[in-house]
Amino acid sequence: MRALRLSDKLELVRDAPLPRHPQETLVQVICAGICNTDLEITKGYAGFEGTLGHEFVGRVVESPRAELIGRRVAGEINVGCGACPLCKSGDSRHCPSRSVLGIKGRDGAFADYLSLPDANLFEVPDSIDDTAAVFLEPLAAALHILDAIEIDHSTQVAIVGDGKLAQLVIRSLTTTGCDITAIGKHESKLSLARVAGARAVPLSDAERERGAFDVVIDASGSASGISLAIELVKPTGTIILKSTHHGSTTLSLTPVVVNELRIAGSRCGRLGPAIEAMSRGSIDVTSLISAVASLDDGPQAFARAGEPGAMKVILRMS
Amino acid sequence: MRALRLSDKLELVRDAPLPRHPQETLVQVICAGICNTDLEITKGYAGFEGTLGHEFVGRVVESPRAELIGRRVAGEINVGCGACPLCKSGDSRHCPSRSVLGIKGRDGAFADYLSLPDANLFEVPDSIDDTAAVFLEPLAAALHILDAIEIDHSTQVAIVGDGKLAQLVIRSLTTTGCDITAIGKHESKLSLARVAGARAVPLSDAERERGAFDVVIDASGSASGISLAIELVKPTGTIILKSTHHGSTTLSLTPVVVNELRIAGSRCGRLGPAIEAMSRGSIDVTSLISAVASLDDGPQAFARAGEPGAMKVILRMS
Repeated sequence: MRALRLSDKLELVRDAPLPRHPQETLVQVICAGICNTDLEITKGYAGFEGTLGHEFVGRVVESPRAELIGRRVAGEINVGCGACPLCKSGDSRHCPSRSVLGIKGRDGAFADYLSLPDANLFEVPDSIDDTAAVFLEPLAAALHILDAIEIDHSTQVAIVGDGKLAQLVIRSLTTTGCDITAIGKHESKLSLARVAGARAVPLSDAERERGAFDVVIDASGSASGISLAIELVKPTGTIILKSTHHGSTTLSLTPVVVNELRIAGSRCGRLGPAIEAMSRGSIDVTSLISAVASLDDGPQAFARAGEPGAMKVILRMS
Repeated sequence: MRALRLSDKLELVRDAPLPRHPQETLVQVICAGICNTDLEITKGYAGFEGTLGHEFVGRVVESPRAELIGRRVAGEINVGCGACPLCKSGDSRHCPSRSVLGIKGRDGAFADYLSLPDANLFEVPDSIDDTAAVFLEPLAAALHILDAIEIDHSTQVAIVGDGKLAQLVIRSLTTTGCDITAIGKHESKLSLARVAGARAVPLSDAERERGAFDVVIDASGSASGISLAIELVKPTGTIILKSTHHGSTTLSLTPVVVNELRIAGSRCGRLGPAIEAMSRGSIDVTSLISAVASLDDGPQAFARAGEPGAMKVILRMS
């Protein structure tokens, strides 16, 4: 099969073996989305080598759970050991020996086929089309913010960033009725934020918003995001760190102590709430698609996804 | 009056004016303790100029609250504007226009007299002697950790640091029954931690403790404390940042996101619970005193307080 693999560089391999794990389910990938994490991995983040890709929709080909065969599915991406206390409590996302689809110890979705345990797979209803279904995994991550902090109509929220993840965060938060401000560099992306219901502020004007927000969500994907978040948040407020990136950050932690800020890291969410939100029609993602390309053009699609101003680039397998 | 003041350098001034603020209470200082924050301020932290010192016990000389006159008191150090929503809710600690005794916009306790509003002052019972009373303010800060996070007998807690604040944190946490590990550089200080009920681990062995703790408290006073804390804490665990220091920190925030850590800054606490804990006799602080010096020897006492291995150096005013 074909697979877009990273070793020294990213390349399309045409004779990759089928990913077969005993007791797992084989999925024929339909579409898969390129995420900022994929771009960071190509720069060295996570030290991963293998097939990239973790946002997908596909059709089940083989499964120990026979009723899954033929179903169109999206997937949660963490696969735990199944034996540790975290896995036994139903949360493999922090299993210390987990693999993560296309990120850690497990080939990913930029291929004709992928393998995951059946427990990771969720049927996608017909109301969600293939390209929208690719957003279910990052939408789950965006909605997962609401597991970390209570946000209601009285909460002043700022989102640092205007990219793909930031846009999904905005769309996830509109259901709470909170006041949303998006802070970003790109006028075209800020327009998308406005359409989704946010007040949009160019990064160059962010200084005026100092200390104005109860909650600041860093979805900037950049090392400087947290420093801006620290400036924007009110004393005793909360910062949610949503994006990972390769490399270190230099910052002053003194305001965190003096202003008694709270910072919470937030990563993968659950697919159930994401499927429910998207099938209700309350989350529009079609405006977030920059391009749909063939897997055969994978390396070029990656280059496109890394261009300034690019939003989601989707790979279609056939 | 005498005052130990910082401008270009730290020096004892003999003809400082009495600190008189309308509507406030004048306190004759008996003893005051040198804190790491004072040492950091002399390096440029907080940009403060004036009389240093914020840990004190003294006797009320003049007050609009007549019943305070003659009483021996300790004090909370933040003075808010009294008019903003935070002040009106009873918490001046985060008032944006607050002054802070000996730290921000208000002369401090290394002087014959200081001034504070009567609401900041708390009578010290006879069971707490003068040198112990100096620890009430930092003890309140240590106990304030329990306002930020629930800790009980099942919680595995590590404290990064073995200095004055770390020792008070250990002593504050023993009441919860939690399992306490102190990680520090100085064998003599680690011995004090052991006596207080902690398991003590030399910093050189900290590597073996990776991912072992539900809660890690950084009381190291150093820029590298948080990076070690991030290594020590379990996935989804909590880091409490307790110490401030001058300058920036370089760290990787990726584990904060991937392991969904929580970080909370924690600063000043309330004197009431500190007085209660110390008067119950459950908090021993006498073993934490390195020296008691005269205010006349203030600059030398500062040098002593900054030596490796030093614990609390107390200035006595008469």
